[in-house]
Amino acid sequence: MNSFEKLMEFQKAKNSRLCVGLDTDINKLPEPFEKSVDSILDFNAEIIDATKESAAAYKINFAFYEQYGSRGFEIIKETINLIGDSAFVIADAKRGDIGNTSEAYAKAVFEYFGADAITIAPYMGSDSVQPFLKYTDKLTFILALTSNPGSADFQRLEFDNKPLFMHVIDKSLTWGSEQSVGFVVGATHPDDISLIRHSIPNSVLLLPGVGAQGADTEHLMVANNNGPCIINASRGVIYAGSGKDYKHFVEHKAKYYKSEFNKYKV
Amino acid sequence: MNSFEKLMEFQKAKNSRLCVGLDTDINKLPEPFEKSVDSILDFNAEIIDATKESAAAYKINFAFYEQYGSRGFEIIKETINLIGDSAFVIADAKRGDIGNTSEAYAKAVFEYFGADAITIAPYMGSDSVQPFLKYTDKLTFILALTSNPGSADFQRLEFDNKPLFMHVIDKSLTWGSEQSVGFVVGATHPDDISLIRHSIPNSVLLLPGVGAQGADTEHLMVANNNGPCIINASRGVIYAGSGKDYKHFVEHKAKYYKSEFNKYKV
Repeated sequence: MNSFEKLMEFQKAKNSRLCVGLDTDINKLPEPFEKSVDSILDFNAEIIDATKESAAAYKINFAFYEQYGSRGFEIIKETINLIGDSAFVIADAKRGDIGNTSEAYAKAVFEYFGADAITIAPYMGSDSVQPFLKYTDKLTFILALTSNPGSADFQRLEFDNKPLFMHVIDKSLTWGSEQSVGFVVGATHPDDISLIRHSIPNSVLLLPGVGAQGADTEHLMVANNNGPCIINASRGVIYAGSGKDYKHFVEHKAKYYKSEFNKYKV
Repeated sequence: MNSFEKLMEFQKAKNSRLCVGLDTDINKLPEPFEKSVDSILDFNAEIIDATKESAAAYKINFAFYEQYGSRGFEIIKETINLIGDSAFVIADAKRGDIGNTSEAYAKAVFEYFGADAITIAPYMGSDSVQPFLKYTDKLTFILALTSNPGSADFQRLEFDNKPLFMHVIDKSLTWGSEQSVGFVVGATHPDDISLIRHSIPNSVLLLPGVGAQGADTEHLMVANNNGPCIINASRGVIYAGSGKDYKHFVEHKAKYYKSEFNKYKV
């Protein structure tokens, strides 16, 4: 079973398109946790437990771990081990470099960490992307139109009446198969998602931006037109509670998003 | 002293604009080394020793270390400790994400690893770049026109008769000062370097692509027109020898590049 099929299986089994983003930040941990690096793993374990019925996938934001150096890197590995076979794992690493260097990044994420999928940045073009796509049984999400305000700076520049993000999408699909190439499109841009869906109905989209970043669920789900997708919420779920009863709020928030996404199935 | 000044000091003291790229790969280590992860640090120590008179800077390519997980991350830290105050340190990490995530990446590289400079990818725009520029005493090299074949895929697309890489340069300079924002421009594109230099004579350029990637030194140096720059060679220097006497060849090759770059000073 390749990663694409694995993702679809988890979504079916859990009846959910929710991905929970583990952007774990020591300074935001709920009351029961000491503000120490080791608390990150303990917190992740509780979050994974609280969301196990609602999260088809977990997205691990590498930056939050790398700031603690080698111990942070260990915690990524330990978190992925904790998830085990219970859900799909996305390494949110936004990597990309010249060919021989991208090869090493791909090895890190797919072989050392054993993630099912990765996010990568397309700026350096074909030979920076292809080493990831060589792992044809994995899923590589290429940044297209990101959820942040800065996405307007370059991604929307138009060349031949086509924005850069559409050039990225069209070109990337010549480099790999529909089941190994996915795209990151911010849930904060529903009108663009609608246009992208018309152009690539079968590609899987990773849609971040729900929750803290404020994307509107109904608008998003209608725009996606029931195409294959996984919708990420990070801060909105994992920091849903701050007191001793935080876990109750996390579980509730994950269930809420799961049912919201199902409500607007087209 | 900020990073820009520190780089200029090292270049003056060593009379060199050479940066040695530590793209250390277990499978390419010379004869005396066992093919083990721990050999990476031993090899780096020998390379740093062999090039100490010629290298004003070292560039650590994170990918090559990350493929060994947390031990690889430790070796990055230990290598930076080995370099100490003897040269400038560039974290070649090509990071970039939404604002709060880029903040964590900046913390990792500038605080945990203590690097003097970083390379970042601009695709996600302003809020992905600015957290790095908040470290006004550091130097952030933004990818503009990279050395690899794939650079033609998106970086040369023209919007308003200006290629994407010039949009990146012009916009980035509105986000930070000339001493905190530098650009990565492939030494493999001398004609473009000439144009870029006319436009930004005072910005520091990180110029990779000499050696294995085949850039022509004379053409490059004339194009750069004596602007502030640091020129990287990785594989061409560190794998200059494969036998027991490898260190002699490494030292010789670093000296060769140092004098080549000085020969064509305008």
